[in-house]
Amino acid sequence: MHRSSAVLADGREIIYYDRATGRAALPPDRRELPPQTAVSRVRYDAPTGDWVVVAGHRQTRVFSPGANDCPLCPSRDGHPTEVPAESYEVVVFENRFSALASAADEPGTSDTGDLLRSARATGRCEVICFCSDHDTTFAELKADHVRLILDAWTDRTRALAAIPGVVQVFCFENRGPEMGVSQPHPHGQIYAYPFVAPRIARMIDRATAHRRDRGTNLFDDLLAAEIADGRRIVRATDEWVAFVPYAAKWPYQVHLYPRRRRLDLTELDEPQSDAFPGIYLDMLQRFERLFDTPTPYVSAWHQAPAADGRDELALHVELFTNRRSSERLKVLGGTEVAMDAFSNDVGPEEAAARLRDLGD
Amino acid sequence: MHRSSAVLADGREIIYYDRATGRAALPPDRRELPPQTAVSRVRYDAPTGDWVVVAGHRQTRVFSPGANDCPLCPSRDGHPTEVPAESYEVVVFENRFSALASAADEPGTSDTGDLLRSARATGRCEVICFCSDHDTTFAELKADHVRLILDAWTDRTRALAAIPGVVQVFCFENRGPEMGVSQPHPHGQIYAYPFVAPRIARMIDRATAHRRDRGTNLFDDLLAAEIADGRRIVRATDEWVAFVPYAAKWPYQVHLYPRRRRLDLTELDEPQSDAFPGIYLDMLQRFERLFDTPTPYVSAWHQAPAADGRDELALHVELFTNRRSSERLKVLGGTEVAMDAFSNDVGPEEAAARLRDLGD
Repeated sequence: MHRSSAVLADGREIIYYDRATGRAALPPDRRELPPQTAVSRVRYDAPTGDWVVVAGHRQTRVFSPGANDCPLCPSRDGHPTEVPAESYEVVVFENRFSALASAADEPGTSDTGDLLRSARATGRCEVICFCSDHDTTFAELKADHVRLILDAWTDRTRALAAIPGVVQVFCFENRGPEMGVSQPHPHGQIYAYPFVAPRIARMIDRATAHRRDRGTNLFDDLLAAEIADGRRIVRATDEWVAFVPYAAKWPYQVHLYPRRRRLDLTELDEPQSDAFPGIYLDMLQRFERLFDTPTPYVSAWHQAPAADGRDELALHVELFTNRRSSERLKVLGGTEVAMDAFSNDVGPEEAAARLRDLGD
Repeated sequence: MHRSSAVLADGREIIYYDRATGRAALPPDRRELPPQTAVSRVRYDAPTGDWVVVAGHRQTRVFSPGANDCPLCPSRDGHPTEVPAESYEVVVFENRFSALASAADEPGTSDTGDLLRSARATGRCEVICFCSDHDTTFAELKADHVRLILDAWTDRTRALAAIPGVVQVFCFENRGPEMGVSQPHPHGQIYAYPFVAPRIARMIDRATAHRRDRGTNLFDDLLAAEIADGRRIVRATDEWVAFVPYAAKWPYQVHLYPRRRRLDLTELDEPQSDAFPGIYLDMLQRFERLFDTPTPYVSAWHQAPAADGRDELALHVELFTNRRSSERLKVLGGTEVAMDAFSNDVGPEEAAARLRDLGD
């Protein structure tokens, strides 16, 4: 994997990832762009312990331009985009409308009391373009290209975790307008938060309690229990296991764990990295076959943060769709969004059986 | 408040709430309905500690029938609905497509191991019709009618909490198709869960830690801090305080607390109950004035469950919309649904200022 870094017109970083060779020359960004003006803070929600990013400057975002104006395609004559190069394999750049910024323009503390406290929104929001072809999908990529994406995610995890103040790196793909995606070009996002993501914090709490009570790792025990049970396994290989979780919240949901537990992407070894593209593409392709209509999804890398209890976490991907049938979506209502109490209409064993049958 | 109870054709309970007098005769439900066949379980998600309702029988729900077929309107000749009476003020009945059931058809335990464990989905899902007029909204109701609704919510809280196995009662309204509402008739829902709702569990954790560390109640301290700060207060009366929370997750969000802390609806005293309709209607009406287009919202009563730490909770309403502007909604993406990490584009002080200006 070759890595080449440059700077966009407004000072944002862009990084090209290539398989065969590095880039001798990086074209300049000739656009005139206004300077970045991030004014975000992160605020602590005392009743739940969760942090919330409060960003006042993102309402002007551009939504869904046509393919001719896609800002994620390579630049061509007269059509400059976010990517100055005329071609790329995988490219990452800082989001122009970032809720988090490594160079904050505010002092570090402006607390109004210890219950109402905020902090500088240190971090980054990056866009990762999975390929230069506007009209393809992640599921259609070749395995060696997915390996390059995995290497880029890994590189970004290492680089972002090294930014002072960054606690959690989150690599994910939202796919489809039903999941809030404003750009159809195949891409994902990488967030570097200055706090432990609330969901990861809960996992650390549970895993820490499990260690205290039983002396073992929660995720090791859970993976062993799923394998022993077997009814929700979609596919198991020498290196990775894909299963529908016992208490799935979404109609179709697959969790993908390496058999040998890792804390984050930087800990994957060669056999694990080599085996990942095959099973991950397989799961995405099964998702594509679920319905007559496109399957919106979220694919979310869960990684250990730089915080107490990180050693108990287990790197894994959570892949899920909000589509219940070809015509119907699961819309989150009061029980989900106000109480975090999910109700799932599709039995996890039934979902796993369907996904097993959808192998090619 | 007068309460009259009957049974629908398939055995579900229906309860009429009336202001002036009770009902001498309750009309029978002459429909032929298939018997209820709930097959739900609640499953424990070991990595997060959350419970999930897994229901395999709800895919056949009827969505958005026309006004002529509204199942929540009173019955009239040749058009039987869920409400056999020809008129009503407020009526509550068990949801025909309930994810929870007080008469479960499965044995109480069928665990497949202590990590993968489930329980009987004891509980109830009820529908509460706020008024018989199909074409009105909650915000348009009169104060004395809202007082009847409050009395009905309170009565249901008391009755449902008394069902063996029920731990948490949740009264809420989802408003608008953007919030997953399939029926336009003004109505809400009442869930009785056999577990502490995940969000309430987190609040109890935080409040218990606060008590241990400081010897005071978290919610008392937080309300005092919001009043002292003042910038996010929308309106404060002798009995109730409405404010945008410091770490608001949604574009417009109001939390409504009684000044004198209560654990659940059954603890409200007369001055609190009398004062509630005025300020609640005021908040809903401000929400209605936010945009040129209707404001979808969730309004969620947070109540203490029957569980350890309940004494630290504070009854309150959380009212929020996912609308960011007349044309745009906040769509939840990977950072929200996979990491529970919210990003809010509208500053809470700015939201509070707008809501203050929208008073009539």
